[in-house]
Amino acid sequence: MNVLVAQDTICALSTAPGLGAIAIIRVSGPDALDVVDSMFSKSLANKTKNGLYYGDLNDGDNLLDEVVISVFRGPHSYTGENTAEISCHGSPFIQQEIIKALLDRDIRMAQPGEFTMRAFANGKMDLSQAEAVADLIASESAVSHDLALKQLRGGFSDELASLREKLIHFASLIELELDFGEEDVEFADRQDLKDLVDEIKGVVKGLVDSFATGNVVKKGVPVAILGAPNMGKSTLLNALLNEERAIVSEIAGTTRDTIEDTMSIDGIQFRFIDTAGIRETDDTIESIGIERAWEKASGASIVIYLVDASTTSEDEINSIRSTFAEKASNDDGTLLIVGNKSDLVKAQLPSNPATLHVSAKTGAGIDQLKSTLVTHIQSGLNTDGTVVTNARHYEALSNALTSLIDVRNGLDQDITGDFLAIDIRKALHHLGEITGEITTDDLLGNIFSRFCIGK
Amino acid sequence: MNVLVAQDTICALSTAPGLGAIAIIRVSGPDALDVVDSMFSKSLANKTKNGLYYGDLNDGDNLLDEVVISVFRGPHSYTGENTAEISCHGSPFIQQEIIKALLDRDIRMAQPGEFTMRAFANGKMDLSQAEAVADLIASESAVSHDLALKQLRGGFSDELASLREKLIHFASLIELELDFGEEDVEFADRQDLKDLVDEIKGVVKGLVDSFATGNVVKKGVPVAILGAPNMGKSTLLNALLNEERAIVSEIAGTTRDTIEDTMSIDGIQFRFIDTAGIRETDDTIESIGIERAWEKASGASIVIYLVDASTTSEDEINSIRSTFAEKASNDDGTLLIVGNKSDLVKAQLPSNPATLHVSAKTGAGIDQLKSTLVTHIQSGLNTDGTVVTNARHYEALSNALTSLIDVRNGLDQDITGDFLAIDIRKALHHLGEITGEITTDDLLGNIFSRFCIGK
Repeated sequence: MNVLVAQDTICALSTAPGLGAIAIIRVSGPDALDVVDSMFSKSLANKTKNGLYYGDLNDGDNLLDEVVISVFRGPHSYTGENTAEISCHGSPFIQQEIIKALLDRDIRMAQPGEFTMRAFANGKMDLSQAEAVADLIASESAVSHDLALKQLRGGFSDELASLREKLIHFASLIELELDFGEEDVEFADRQDLKDLVDEIKGVVKGLVDSFATGNVVKKGVPVAILGAPNMGKSTLLNALLNEERAIVSEIAGTTRDTIEDTMSIDGIQFRFIDTAGIRETDDTIESIGIERAWEKASGASIVIYLVDASTTSEDEINSIRSTFAEKASNDDGTLLIVGNKSDLVKAQLPSNPATLHVSAKTGAGIDQLKSTLVTHIQSGLNTDGTVVTNARHYEALSNALTSLIDVRNGLDQDITGDFLAIDIRKALHHLGEITGEITTDDLLGNIFSRFCIGK
Repeated sequence: MNVLVAQDTICALSTAPGLGAIAIIRVSGPDALDVVDSMFSKSLANKTKNGLYYGDLNDGDNLLDEVVISVFRGPHSYTGENTAEISCHGSPFIQQEIIKALLDRDIRMAQPGEFTMRAFANGKMDLSQAEAVADLIASESAVSHDLALKQLRGGFSDELASLREKLIHFASLIELELDFGEEDVEFADRQDLKDLVDEIKGVVKGLVDSFATGNVVKKGVPVAILGAPNMGKSTLLNALLNEERAIVSEIAGTTRDTIEDTMSIDGIQFRFIDTAGIRETDDTIESIGIERAWEKASGASIVIYLVDASTTSEDEINSIRSTFAEKASNDDGTLLIVGNKSDLVKAQLPSNPATLHVSAKTGAGIDQLKSTLVTHIQSGLNTDGTVVTNARHYEALSNALTSLIDVRNGLDQDITGDFLAIDIRKALHHLGEITGEITTDDLLGNIFSRFCIGK
């Protein structure tokens, strides 16, 4: 990994671009402190401890600004390198002048995520932790924030790393056996290896399974709103979103495009999908809309099917259930039949545990619907356990699981050490990809290019 | 001024709003360190020196983020109070959660400029320096940046404050004379007082005079581009701005609205004004445009009058000069006659020191025109001297100057001490307004409301 360790010094604006009271320009690398020292009115050379220094920042004879410099000496810094954070007045002009002055001194602009990439290269964090930094900055809800923070603090990577170490130990024993190929020795106890593979398989399987929830949480839980025309789907969406998002009209079939909008309820991000009314129709455009509504429903974690609270019979509800089971291909999807227009009727729907009553118009029952949505997701979201939210991790874990199953089958069939070794190596490779023990330039480039500049 | 000193603790996002690698939330006031300490994984209580502390920020059991806290103990802080700057991951969600947690702990959101207002209240800076902070953050060119920075570091306020002290000394002597009214004593030497008033008058007059330049530099030097139709005014504007800003067409009278745009040349901000072609016309709309062109010209620091380099005679140029002298009411305005379309002709304009030759179309001569503009402004801009850029200071200085002239006239006419005292008090009042020795809530409210939140 040493090839990654940078020889040059980089800088970037690390706060959000634009006008603010304060802006921070981060400088990191072998020359960071020397260069900043040479521009600063006080000497930083004899400051051996991390600290804050107030003074003038100059570009030659030209005073750039009065600044506070935070000095972090490597390895006690974010990147692990010598780092200076220049806290200046937040004028875009000053930001630009300071960066210009740094570039004039053989410091170059940082690439997106390059500070974090250096933290990874210097062993300050593993790859999955580095990815968590980007997730943390992008997090928009309490749950995705918590998941990112958990991953940043080790998450599942510590456990995986230790299991991987044990597997490496077995792999070396088996490869040692190969050196004694003719002698038919067994250094690696096959039963111990079976136990270890089962243990790792269990952990990896749990993580692979958690991705369904993790992915949903990260992107927002998709909730499709279906129902016959004029059941008030758009009004319900507005009531949930608390704003006039969808065009509401009394003409059946007003909503042709599916409309998406997100909101956070109890820290969980939901993505609401309003759909065209589902009915038989001669209108071509609308029938395309209906097809799309069913498509959306099959990808949604939760489907809210709106019915009229006053007129819908139990038979009709059962028919909706079976249509849903047939049309919606998502096994994990939940159907929530909601009786709307509860304000208009005294008569209640036939008692049915899955059925809620709301009035999208008056807002009655909306809070109960929201908490039902949250409960449905939280049951699948074990916040104490670890959850995989990253598609790259999911892919690596799935590949590792396949290889581990191959290893286990091989052990059951008592195959020879050389074939076993190949499958173990594959599993090790995929596990190593997650924490960054195995990387390629492409992989790293792909991961860090998604960061913002300055991190 | 002690009524201003705050008893409560305030917080705000101090970096630019939006997504960045890092965001800073500033907390200042009596409880700042205690509250942040109670949320932080390490104890800050025993940290008596300013410094950087890395750890977890919690809201009860809920981990908010891993942060770096910069601790500044009053009076060694920007505000003069205990201050903590929380450097967190730059996600808007995290920013919001941290601020929410602070608000839950009886800290309130800061008003715009409130941190700087506290710095002023705690004697960390005078009022003109506080105003310079806002100017510095808003500065968009090297010259306005330098002027703001100079003012932030004392500028003219130190000199004014010391002259004001001397004047106060005289005022007390004269008011002492009034106590002995019947006895006709003179504690204050009239000649010394005349000398002092002359000295202060000289300084104040210089500052008042500098405002014309200072104001122009701060807002951008207005440059009006005039000329007969089809002289290429819009093309020249585009050449100066390096972009297609004005609609260029070959139909005379295309430009009806005056178009403004700014650019920085050698650190000086210029505000270019394209105007409708000046000619006699029957088109009502266009004749309004021509009136406005002359209006703009009378407010401009520099008027570029475009003529055809091949056809314009010396007589015509002289006629333009006299029209300019008559129509443009600005005494300080400079007329720059520029011969355009130099690419089309061999024949040069009759030799004339004020005349430049350009081709707006090919760009020839544009650089020379730019440097002529800069030279015209720099001659009036003594960057070593102090320059007043603030309209409030200008008004106070003008009022002080009027009072000082009254004092001086009174001394010449040997008026009695009681009348003298009134004029001296007036001068003292206006001088005190600049540095903030004299303030009102309205004045402070007005000044600090123009700041951004977080400063």
